[in-house]
Parts: sequence; C-alpha cells; structure tokens
Amino acid sequence: MIIRQILVTPVAFRDPPLLNAAGVHEPWALRTIVEVVTDEGLTGLGETYGDVKHLGKVRECAQALIGLDVHATNTMYARISTIVSDSSTGATTKEKSIDRVFSPFEVACLDVRGKAAGVPITDLLGGQVRDAVPYSAYLFYKWAGHPNQEQDRFGTALDESGIVEQASLLIKQYGFRSIKLKGGVFPPDQEVAATKALHAAFPELPLRLDPNAAWTVETSIRVGRELDGILQYLEDPTPGIPGMAEVAAAVPMPLATNMCVVTHEHLPPAIASRAIGVLLLDHHYWGGLIRSSHVATLCDTFGLALSMHSNSHLGISLAAMTHLAAATPNLTFACDTHTPWQDGQDVVQPGALRFVDGAVPVPTGPGLGVELDRDALARMNEQYEKCGILARDDTSYMQRFDPAFSARRSRW
Amino acid sequence: MIIRQILVTPVAFRDPPLLNAAGVHEPWALRTIVEVVTDEGLTGLGETYGDVKHLGKVRECAQALIGLDVHATNTMYARISTIVSDSSTGATTKEKSIDRVFSPFEVACLDVRGKAAGVPITDLLGGQVRDAVPYSAYLFYKWAGHPNQEQDRFGTALDESGIVEQASLLIKQYGFRSIKLKGGVFPPDQEVAATKALHAAFPELPLRLDPNAAWTVETSIRVGRELDGILQYLEDPTPGIPGMAEVAAAVPMPLATNMCVVTHEHLPPAIASRAIGVLLLDHHYWGGLIRSSHVATLCDTFGLALSMHSNSHLGISLAAMTHLAAATPNLTFACDTHTPWQDGQDVVQPGALRFVDGAVPVPTGPGLGVELDRDALARMNEQYEKCGILARDDTSYMQRFDPAFSARRSRW
Repeated sequence: MIIRQILVTPVAFRDPPLLNAAGVHEPWALRTIVEVVTDEGLTGLGETYGDVKHLGKVRECAQALIGLDVHATNTMYARISTIVSDSSTGATTKEKSIDRVFSPFEVACLDVRGKAAGVPITDLLGGQVRDAVPYSAYLFYKWAGHPNQEQDRFGTALDESGIVEQASLLIKQYGFRSIKLKGGVFPPDQEVAATKALHAAFPELPLRLDPNAAWTVETSIRVGRELDGILQYLEDPTPGIPGMAEVAAAVPMPLATNMCVVTHEHLPPAIASRAIGVLLLDHHYWGGLIRSSHVATLCDTFGLALSMHSNSHLGISLAAMTHLAAATPNLTFACDTHTPWQDGQDVVQPGALRFVDGAVPVPTGPGLGVELDRDALARMNEQYEKCGILARDDTSYMQRFDPAFSARRSRW
Repeated sequence: MIIRQILVTPVAFRDPPLLNAAGVHEPWALRTIVEVVTDEGLTGLGETYGDVKHLGKVRECAQALIGLDVHATNTMYARISTIVSDSSTGATTKEKSIDRVFSPFEVACLDVRGKAAGVPITDLLGGQVRDAVPYSAYLFYKWAGHPNQEQDRFGTALDESGIVEQASLLIKQYGFRSIKLKGGVFPPDQEVAATKALHAAFPELPLRLDPNAAWTVETSIRVGRELDGILQYLEDPTPGIPGMAEVAAAVPMPLATNMCVVTHEHLPPAIASRAIGVLLLDHHYWGGLIRSSHVATLCDTFGLALSMHSNSHLGISLAAMTHLAAATPNLTFACDTHTPWQDGQDVVQPGALRFVDGAVPVPTGPGLGVELDRDALARMNEQYEKCGILARDDTSYMQRFDPAFSARRSRW
C-alpha cells in the first residue's frame, strides 16, 4: 500500500474563553487535518496542531513521504528527522519536534492498515482491554463569552460556585466520573477553595488540579499538603524536573505531568529523581500511537501510572486517543479531553463517537472508525483562512484586555 | 481471523558437545514448534523451548487461546498470565514464565497477520531499517564428538588453537564479521589466552567473551582490564546485578547480559546501578516480537546498546530474530545465533534463510517468510520421542563423564 498523495488541511473552530496560566483561549482554535491516500484507494486520517510553523513542517514532510509503503514508519520517521530541526516547529526539543510532525502521518497510516485488514486500530495495538475509555470533566475558569461577542452556553466560571456549576453541566451532559480543574489562573488559595467545593459537591468523583507550573516549590508543597485526601493527583504544580522532584518528596499525592516529561530524554532524570508518579501520555507529541504504546510499557516497567493529556482537538484525535487507551492495559486513569468545549463542531461525520457515562465506547469500524465530513472540513478550512490566527497565543490575547497580564512561571 | 486450532509439536535435533559453564550440550537439543491455524485457513508459526514443563504449559495455554482473534494479543497475554505461575516452566520469575509461554503464540499470530496483509513481519514492526541482519561467529570449546559417538565435522576445540581453527571454519563458511567466544569452561587465564589468540588471528573483527557468570567480581575486573582494547563487550562475567555493577564500574568495556536482566523487574535496578551497557534481547523470553520492540525503545531511552541472545534453535526462530532485528533501529550489534551448530537440520523448507557475509538477508515472503517442512517436522518429532531427553541438563550430562564437575557460580 504505497502512499500516493497526502492532503494537509488547516482548520479553525470556535473555542470559548478558557482561562489558564498562559492567558485565555482565543476565539478560534487551530488544528491540521492529514489525509494519506494510497495506491489502492484507501485513505487514512490524522490530526495535529495547527500553528503555522508546525503546519509548514507537516506540509514539507508530507511531500517526503510520497512513494513509501504505509508500513514503513521507521523510514518515515528517519526522513522526517532529516527535515525537522530543533526550533522549526516551536517544540522544546528536536526529538519532540520530530515526534509532533511524525504523529499524524503514523495515525493515518494505521488508519489505512486497519481499513485494509478490516480491523479497528485497537487491534493493531494489541487488541482491546476495555470496551470504552473513561474521560474526565475538564473544568476551566472562564468568562461568559469572548469580549465583544455573544455569551457561550457554558456560562461564567470565575469562582468556586461557577466552577461547581460548570462541573454539574458537563457531568449531566456527558456522565463524567472524574474531574480535572485547570488552575494557575487565580491565587492558589482561591483554587484550593474551588477544589474543596468540587469535592464537597461530588465527593465520590476523583479530582485533579493542574496549575500548569504556575506555582513555586514552596506554594506547591503547601497546596499539595492542604489537598491531602482530596486530589487523585496534582498535575504540574511547578516548572522543571528538579522542582517537581522536590514537591513530589513532600506532598502526599502523586504528581502528574505533561510539561516536564514530554520526550524520551526527560524520562531518565525524571525517573531517577522520582519527580513524577503519573505520566500524561499524548500521542500528538510522543510520536503517534505505537511509539506511545512503547512509552506506556516503559511507565509500567518503572512503576509510573498513566493518564492522557489533551489540547483543543477534534474527532480524529478523540478516536485515536480512544483506540490507544483501549489497547493499553496500564492506562487506568480517566483521560483528559477538550471535546465538550468544541461543542459539537467536528470534521468527522457524527455517530461514531459518543460519551456514555463519561466514557467513549471504542469505535468498532475499521481503522480509526471515523469518516471525514468533507463539508465540515471545507467550512472549517474557510474559517481558518478568515480567522486571522496563525498560532495559538493565549498570552497576547489576554493582554488585549489586561495589559498588565504576565504568564510568568512560577507566578505564585 | 479467529484461531481455530493450535498444533504444538516437540522436536529434537542433533547437537554437538558444546562446553559451557553449566556442563556440556547433550546429543539432542529440544524445541517446540507452534502452528496457529485460523478460520480463514492461514497458518502461523512459532518456535520456543522444548523442556517438558514448558511444553506442558504451552499446550495448556494453546487450548485457552482457541476462539480469539489473532490481533487479540493483550487478551492472550492476560489468559496466559492466569495459567502460568512462577515455577511452572522453570523460568526464574512469574513475568518471565508468562513471557516465555506467550512468545511463540505472538510470533505465530504476527505470521498470520503478515500473510493476510501480504507483508513480511518486519513491516508489522515498523518496516526494515536494514536489508540483512549481521550475526556473530558463536564459538564454543568442544569435544571432537559426543563420547561413544562419531566425531562431528567441527573438530576439537579445547585450547586456543582449536578455538582459532573453529573460528576460521565458521567464518569461511558463513562470512561472519564478528566473534563471540562462550567461556566459563576453563580457568580464566586460558580463556584470556584464547581471546587474545582470536584477536591476533582476526584483528579486524569485534570480539566478545561470555563466561556465563562463572567468575567472581575480582576475577571479572582482572580479566576485563586485561582485555582492554580487545573486547567489544564482556558478557555476564559474574552473577547478579550488584556484582555486575561493581565490575562495570571498574572495567573499560561495557558489560552485556542475558542473565541478570531477563524481565522488566530487572531493568530499574540494573539501570539505576549502571550494571550493564548492552542488553542481549531475546524475543523467546521477552514476550514475543512487539514486546521486545518495546524493550528496545526502553534501552534507547536509557542509553543501553542492544545485541541479541540465542539458544539452540531452528529456522522459525532465526526468521523471527531477523525480522525483529531488521525493524529495530537501535539493534546495531551483530546478533548471536546457534544456527551453524544445527548443521543444516531444520523444520523449515530450505531457501528462505541464508547467510551472506555473516548476515541473514531479511526474508521477503509474507509473515515470517518461511514454510514448514512437514517431513522434517515429523522426523524431528520422532527424534524427540526416541531421544529420551525431557529437559536440557548440561550439568548431569557432563557429570556422566566427569563426576566431580560442578556448575557452581562463581567458580573462579
């Protein structure tokens, strides 16, 4: 099955004003959709980041993969390695840059292989170990709407009552059985209060708090100790492996990360210093699904638990994440997803992906089990062309409304 | 592709009297051949150890896999885990026991999948990164023949000149470009002399020495220092991770192992104590080809080099080893193989596997790329029934001729 053509389409979709340590989500979120077309007429789908530097590298690498067999992922990776350099995509290391660019092609090739074999991608990853993948309610402090635009349906969440209300809304609609609060927005004591309010409102549901490294080591330890018995894990309280290791040694709950361990070179020092207890896997930057499954095995070997990280994404990513999680025996925590915030916007045809009791049943169709909605793709590509955003920049957007805002970490 | 039948056939083939720290190879080596037959009529092949306890577990587990899809390897592994216990196969840990039993089924299922997709197994492991896999000349001290039997064609090798002669014979016939000497047979100074004689005779060829943990830490350090500049790596000089770590810190070359790191639980302490520099991968006890590829990634992450271990084996194993090595970018050392010592005996039809300049070109047929020779299988099964050996026991066999022999480690 030879790759004859690769289509790379940037898309934009409406995103609510979600607050975080870097600022606030802009009105449009960007993604790139990859379609790998083979000589036998099968097409595979991949989804990745939409920032323009990354998009450029994805386009350049797409050309370099024409003529390869869909199985030849080692060769694809090697070719991409020669094209992608440290700083060319905005990622922090060369390996992460390569893995980020490689990922959508790998997923698309697995989609083709699954379609050819008539099996879901789960089966190419060792087969299902669970029928449905649990996700968490991913809560954000947020404004009622973007400034000078209509309010969105999610309402305001700028204090603990707003957060509890948001949790109720998402849990009612999706059935989530665990909760993650994105912090790093307000002084830590306010976020501790919101976390405690969530625990009081939903005492049965595991809770996580993620301030995106907005805190010092001292603050992290203080908050961690205060939330003993309330948090399932504390995510990235402070920047860097040494800081995380200091915090991990002093707080009662495990620390999770999608910030200080994002590529293989970070694993040995993080493991040696016991900086983390949970790795938040993300196939978008760990080099696709199979490479992510290798990382999962490594975590099992070293006694690290696994959950899954998410950025704003569409249905191709949700399908890929679900297949990976369904085939990974040690991915036992509920995964993160931004799906509720995309509020029905998607590039895939409806029906294949749904939430039941907070979990996504594994799509049963061949490959990813989702099909492109070409009208939606065209519409979202048009939105991309018109929206005027070329790269996510939560900080500058925030500074339009609050010129004094600083995304400095550690802030508190 | 549902598994309808699994055939498990023990076989025996003639083995020369190869000396090692445990004693001497018996006249017959045992293996088990696994055939996985699917509802669509495709058959996949696997090969594993032949000892009777292991054979019993393979047979028992074969029954438990009927009705599963060939992709459902996670489920197969889980089912085998419930059947296999710590001591039931002679392996040293429960995990290693499970991995050993699971391996031939996994390889056979990949063989089926490759045949169904029309691609070699290499393609199911990420695709070829090399066209041919280099193997080393695997030298053994040996008698001229088994006592009371005819001499074999390999001649006597009980001193350095015999060893150099053996190397010449194997290199002439197979074109090997690196050399491994199995030591642990004679006092270390004799094996040092043989190693130096090999280096003098073949100054361009990388050399390894493997005394199978026959030495103390002190002896290992003395030998390691004496062979500075001569050995590519020193394999398992002394027993256990702590002892290996002491040696590793004091000798100039990396240490390799297939003894102190044979399952995932050994990896963290070996890595933390820097006990090894090279892992000798073996899909027969690392749980098949895909699990071995995960271990290969882990080694890359932690800066461990890779080579490949072998026991006495037949062509199904050689094909599987070759596919794995061909698809593993960081498997850069020549692998071990006992193939020359099987001296043409095989259960696979001739033609698919050959040595060119010491390397095996990757079989290009679908799946493993080898086909069973049913006459040979029947003949070798008959040999198994008649040979009277139920489990490899080099020590007892040696003691028939040298009642004072002890396989004690460390011996020197």
